[in-house]
Amino acid sequence: MRCFKPPRKFVPYEVDKTSNFKYELCRIMRPDDANIVGHVHGGNILKMIEEAGCIISTRHCNTQNEDRCLAALVRVEKTEFLAPLFIGEVAHATAEITFTSQHSLEVQVKVIGEDIITGSKKLVNKAVLWYVPCSQLNVDKIMKVPPIKFTTEQEEEGRQRYETQKTARLKTKEMIEDVTPPPPNPEKHTVGFSQSSLIHLVGPSDCTLHDYVHGGVTMKLMDEVAGIVAARHCNTNIVTASVHAINFHRKINKGCVVTVTGRLTFTSNKSMEIEVVVDACSLVNEEKVSYRAVSAFFTFISLDKFRRAQIVPPLQVSGEEEQRRYDEGQARYLFNKAKRVAEREAEQ
Amino acid sequence: MRCFKPPRKFVPYEVDKTSNFKYELCRIMRPDDANIVGHVHGGNILKMIEEAGCIISTRHCNTQNEDRCLAALVRVEKTEFLAPLFIGEVAHATAEITFTSQHSLEVQVKVIGEDIITGSKKLVNKAVLWYVPCSQLNVDKIMKVPPIKFTTEQEEEGRQRYETQKTARLKTKEMIEDVTPPPPNPEKHTVGFSQSSLIHLVGPSDCTLHDYVHGGVTMKLMDEVAGIVAARHCNTNIVTASVHAINFHRKINKGCVVTVTGRLTFTSNKSMEIEVVVDACSLVNEEKVSYRAVSAFFTFISLDKFRRAQIVPPLQVSGEEEQRRYDEGQARYLFNKAKRVAEREAEQ
Amino acid sequence: MRCFKPPRKFVPYEVDKTSNFKYELCRIMRPDDANIVGHVHGGNILKMIEEAGCIISTRHCNTQNEDRCLAALVRVEKTEFLAPLFIGEVAHATAEITFTSQHSLEVQVKVIGEDIITGSKKLVNKAVLWYVPCSQLNVDKIMKVPPIKFTTEQEEEGRQRYETQKTARLKTKEMIEDVTPPPPNPEKHTVGFSQSSLIHLVGPSDCTLHDYVHGGVTMKLMDEVAGIVAARHCNTNIVTASVHAINFHRKINKGCVVTVTGRLTFTSNKSMEIEVVVDACSLVNEEKVSYRAVSAFFTFISLDKFRRAQIVPPLQVSGEEEQRRYDEGQARYLFNKAKRVAEREAEQ
Repeated sequence: MRCFKPPRKFVPYEVDKTSNFKYELCRIMRPDDANIVGHVHGGNILKMIEEAGCIISTRHCNTQNEDRCLAALVRVEKTEFLAPLFIGEVAHATAEITFTSQHSLEVQVKVIGEDIITGSKKLVNKAVLWYVPCSQLNVDKIMKVPPIKFTTEQEEEGRQRYETQKTARLKTKEMIEDVTPPPPNPEKHTVGFSQSSLIHLVGPSDCTLHDYVHGGVTMKLMDEVAGIVAARHCNTNIVTASVHAINFHRKINKGCVVTVTGRLTFTSNKSMEIEVVVDACSLVNEEKVSYRAVSAFFTFISLDKFRRAQIVPPLQVSGEEEQRRYDEGQARYLFNKAKRVAEREAEQ
Repeated sequence: MRCFKPPRKFVPYEVDKTSNFKYELCRIMRPDDANIVGHVHGGNILKMIEEAGCIISTRHCNTQNEDRCLAALVRVEKTEFLAPLFIGEVAHATAEITFTSQHSLEVQVKVIGEDIITGSKKLVNKAVLWYVPCSQLNVDKIMKVPPIKFTTEQEEEGRQRYETQKTARLKTKEMIEDVTPPPPNPEKHTVGFSQSSLIHLVGPSDCTLHDYVHGGVTMKLMDEVAGIVAARHCNTNIVTASVHAINFHRKINKGCVVTVTGRLTFTSNKSMEIEVVVDACSLVNEEKVSYRAVSAFFTFISLDKFRRAQIVPPLQVSGEEEQRRYDEGQARYLFNKAKRVAEREAEQ
Repeated sequence: MRCFKPPRKFVPYEVDKTSNFKYELCRIMRPDDANIVGHVHGGNILKMIEEAGCIISTRHCNTQNEDRCLAALVRVEKTEFLAPLFIGEVAHATAEITFTSQHSLEVQVKVIGEDIITGSKKLVNKAVLWYVPCSQLNVDKIMKVPPIKFTTEQEEEGRQRYETQKTARLKTKEMIEDVTPPPPNPEKHTVGFSQSSLIHLVGPSDCTLHDYVHGGVTMKLMDEVAGIVAARHCNTNIVTASVHAINFHRKINKGCVVTVTGRLTFTSNKSMEIEVVVDACSLVNEEKVSYRAVSAFFTFISLDKFRRAQIVPPLQVSGEEEQRRYDEGQARYLFNKAKRVAEREAEQ
């Protein structure tokens, strides 16, 4: 085996002269990535986004001279699925570091779908992720992030995003509630009717070198449960439309069983909001304390056979709790709708 | 666990000159096939057994001149795991057709584990499976099985096994009960404490060319849930010891969601019996009728760090139903114990 | 869903101004990609190489205005594994079109391994692949390849490589022999002792949109069998050192059973050559004719615990046939050795 000096052109961060901190992952979408009508599951796209983010963050955080470290996902900002991906198309996920604080870094990932037969391309997703570097020797030790020099304007905007997400994360942490599942309800279109749980025993391929579950693996499971809840509610071809900010409260390690539970909180005319919580529990520790590892809201839409969004049956809520969650879901829905309108006007 | 003297030769169809109907599958066991201490999950072995059985049955049933057909698994006889398999070992599953009736065929599969580093071999499992050929044009049409000539004695013994399994299948069909899950119970070692369910959306790789779920895929999911129930009950390294006869009542097709539920029925001093039921439900059909597709009993044992079977915490039952299932489990346990003793004596 | 005009910088072939025909795939190596000591299987690297080659070729061949087409792999030139890849490292496969004839194109793929913890990089593999474009409407119709303008020198060298491989492919086609497996031999270090077969039922995720098996999937299976043969022969940690040119004689389609058989042909002091043949057979077709789809020679080396190549037990051959194959293997070995020496001298 011969030693090798890598040719200049292979170093990915020399590819684009405008940024030193870019990374691209790509792969062909296969039948197993998609549902029966050929739509790639949103969860697979989230998983790919996280893999790209994890690689670029880990690489950057190891450019310092202290402990070797691995970047752990702590938050994904609200993200929308802008176009569907299909089997046989190639997905390109390009990650770029866009801000660094002392102990965290922001990564923006764009996913482009390419039809290699026709050559056409489309923007599938744009996501913003936050990572913190954990020492390889002691996973609870958060390392310092080597600072990156941005323009004053970029720096200023980044700091604002940083403060906003920090506040949001603290707020969510307080809000974590103990989810006692509603009794199953045989009546259609109620919360209890479509609520679903899956359990998954964490295996080696789900984990990083630290033996902690990749954030992307967890997001894929969450999307899977949310999709089943949505399909049970409306019995049609459903697709992920967007994911509200996801916070990763605690790590999940190898050998855990994770229980992923989804329940409908709100339906608008053409969308469904599903709350998904992930609880983890070690199988081998005697104490066996289950803890809330992640929680998030997924929005799904229902498609007819021409792939147009169609009317969703209204959710039947009952009881104070279900009503409260419905109202909160409606508030999020109206807020996002107003925001989209504002953005569209700003673009024009 | 018994030791095993490996047969002299591994070459597939030259193995046995007396039979033209043999088949061998083999593959290396990977990290994802095993639990965190390296034991290959019993479910993966069952899946491999079924794949070998499906190939040999499908091939044989297509030697006639009518519709092309695919063999569907309808029953697996009680099977025991005789030795553990580990990551890096090669599993060989050899399938042989041992009886044909007009519309079904019996396949016997042996699994040999080979340590390719030391060359040592061990018998891991011996299973008996029953298949029926379904027409590729109309999956509900059962085709005729081309008859195979056996010796009079083989024919006689095979017919007896055929009649026995037929009776057992009919009996089980009558017994299918509606499993209302017990309320979750926070108290340790109760049935409600360890009961677990998983849901799985059937994907293309789970299916045959007919778009029906492979029996082996279903068995793997069942073993997964049973393992989680067992681990929740005793918080140790647990392994599949045996599977009571499994009957496949109905087919599961692509696009279904399957709900696999496991609950403890009985514990002996060193074993746990878990009842596992599989319910399938189409996500896209408006009627949304959930039906019982499969049910079976799995027996697990708990291992200490030297891989010796250890004492299992006794199951706390409450209520008439739990007591009835406990008594039935105990009856199965005592019956099998007596049978094993009788076999051992017969061998001597 | 909003429409989207892709940003200029995402178009991969604008990345490097020196070539318009480049493509890069990358992903993290996971536990399932590797053997028990953490070495990534050569077969996974071959699979990744082929995926990159397939994407770039398919994309290029669809820049014409006739039938849409998919590129099918017909040949991989001799390729060497220059450095090992480990779990947790990122593999980058960069593909580039380097020659086009009327009906075929040559793609060169380089694989770089990157340790994202230390930042170090190494060249893992360099491969040359040949593809032909098949019409999507009629898979037996070979389409024209849109010509690429190279410099006169590049054009000249490419044409020579094209003629050489064409001759080699025709020659191999003539040489396809019926492999009657040797009788299994209980004696160590004979050909019959280590010979192995594996059987795989082709599933949807193994296939392209055409429902034909990806060349990379087949190569991965071939590497797996060759690895089992090598490990049986020397009972140590073995790794793929190189692959002699692989010719894909015929396509394998969905629903086939493939039988992959490997046997030792030759051992040098520190290497083993394994011949691997792939036979495919439809499970449901009446005729049930098994045909030879691929054949190749893999070279493996045996590593001690410090990952240094170690002495291999000499192969015991018996009979004329085994001796002939041994002599042919030795000729290939000596030829390659002489070639390497010449190349090293040329480099200095």
